[in-house]
Amino acid sequence: MAGRAAYIAVDWGTTNRRAYAVASDGTVVDTLTDGRGVLSIARDAYPAEISALRTRFGAEPVIAVGMVGSSRGWCEAPYVDAPATLERLAGSCREAAPDVRIVPGVALRDGRRPDVMRGEEIQILGAIHAGTAPATALFCQPGTHNKWVETVDGAITTFTTVMTGEFFSLLRTHGILAGMLDGPVSDGAAFRRGLRRGIASGNLAATLFEVRAGLLLDRLEPAAAAAYASGVLIGADVATRDDLGGRPVHLLGGGALSALYAVAVTEMGGTPVIVPDGATTAGIHALWSLNA
Amino acid sequence: MAGRAAYIAVDWGTTNRRAYAVASDGTVVDTLTDGRGVLSIARDAYPAEISALRTRFGAEPVIAVGMVGSSRGWCEAPYVDAPATLERLAGSCREAAPDVRIVPGVALRDGRRPDVMRGEEIQILGAIHAGTAPATALFCQPGTHNKWVETVDGAITTFTTVMTGEFFSLLRTHGILAGMLDGPVSDGAAFRRGLRRGIASGNLAATLFEVRAGLLLDRLEPAAAAAYASGVLIGADVATRDDLGGRPVHLLGGGALSALYAVAVTEMGGTPVIVPDGATTAGIHALWSLNA
Repeated sequence: MAGRAAYIAVDWGTTNRRAYAVASDGTVVDTLTDGRGVLSIARDAYPAEISALRTRFGAEPVIAVGMVGSSRGWCEAPYVDAPATLERLAGSCREAAPDVRIVPGVALRDGRRPDVMRGEEIQILGAIHAGTAPATALFCQPGTHNKWVETVDGAITTFTTVMTGEFFSLLRTHGILAGMLDGPVSDGAAFRRGLRRGIASGNLAATLFEVRAGLLLDRLEPAAAAAYASGVLIGADVATRDDLGGRPVHLLGGGALSALYAVAVTEMGGTPVIVPDGATTAGIHALWSLNA
Repeated sequence: MAGRAAYIAVDWGTTNRRAYAVASDGTVVDTLTDGRGVLSIARDAYPAEISALRTRFGAEPVIAVGMVGSSRGWCEAPYVDAPATLERLAGSCREAAPDVRIVPGVALRDGRRPDVMRGEEIQILGAIHAGTAPATALFCQPGTHNKWVETVDGAITTFTTVMTGEFFSLLRTHGILAGMLDGPVSDGAAFRRGLRRGIASGNLAATLFEVRAGLLLDRLEPAAAAAYASGVLIGADVATRDDLGGRPVHLLGGGALSALYAVAVTEMGGTPVIVPDGATTAGIHALWSLNA
């Protein structure tokens, strides 16, 4: 029989929600994954959501991370400035309701360029805490908004958000390339050709139009167009990192996308390292242990 | 009273249509602008459209340019390969119906990268024919798909399509920046700041996320976000031309957008030259004169 839950961890994103009942030793004893992301929940409906989670998992404290703490979520947990450690996050949680804490995101506020993250930080620091990634490392978190994150001695020091996944999704659904990008996306000749083109291009908004021109001029097979375009986008993304040569890149949370980024990192001379799943719950557990 | 029409010129695009009744000396004697672009017309409805134009303008020959000659239009007029002159376009028209000719587009078929245009070529060659631009020049045609076009001695030799306008439209309507880019877009401090950022960035998909981060961290005014994002996109577009220094750039057909591109060209060291309206009808008239 599963052990008793000590608290409920919630990874509460824009469109999805993952909730975990966690024992005091960090063991996940029960999980729930659904589409109750912040876009589908009215602000005054969160207390009922918490009650439902406690009915399911037990009347335990809740720790939530992600967009639930944004201006579009339940209640705003102001960003912690980089460099950000687990301890600083733990000390800056917002109590949204009795025994419900929301973990803040991380901001680059005053530097050359602004950037923000919310949810990714706990995954990175969780991997470091769990020992599945070094304390000083370069991370890549592929997804709708890919994050390149640098850590030094267990602190997030700088990061860059790249809208690679969103661009692919917008282009596939709307605009001139819609209907041309419905084929499969996986590693193979078309993906690699797109990757090399994206790395060399320096002009994403022009290189993507080559997908249409290539189809019209029979230089690109219709079934290969999606993989090629994905290669162009991921290639342009990794090519803006001129510091990958000879360096491990820790890939985190990207599912099947991580395999494509691994190919791209290798192409740029880096060494991809796929970090095992479980980093987010490891991070939340470290945070709970600090605050418990 | 207006002179008698010798033929009907139609600039038949994806969403819009402009039709002109033109006298034998090239004078436009009547015009019609409507939303009867190729997306709104079934393939078998074109003969009726032609009849309606002739009812309006007189039973004259028709010369049509643009997407009407694409695979999504009425009947495909295969691309002419670059280098493309007016004479080659005139010799490659497709007769879609009695006395209805469709002008082909231009393709880069076999070079390092594929590209296509359909409609822009007649505007460029028309400006040259009319003497409002030199025969050897660099052109920029801002719009949904901006074209950078090089001509040598009156022939289109090479060109690049950049999806700058489409990116702006997609981002404004869908995705994470939707709702943040509804402010005015015009030259001013925010546009220029975005322009400089776009020129310096080298990573469009990251720099555009700074719009969101800048708003969240109070580094960007909500009312300035659209102009800033437009600056980023146009800056990234012009920055991929490293050959603008000291060079005239002939801006064509971009309407209000041309003024923003003129600022960007100047920022890159080039000399913007706004080409007067009327280039498309001048090009069609030159073509009619060759074939008449």
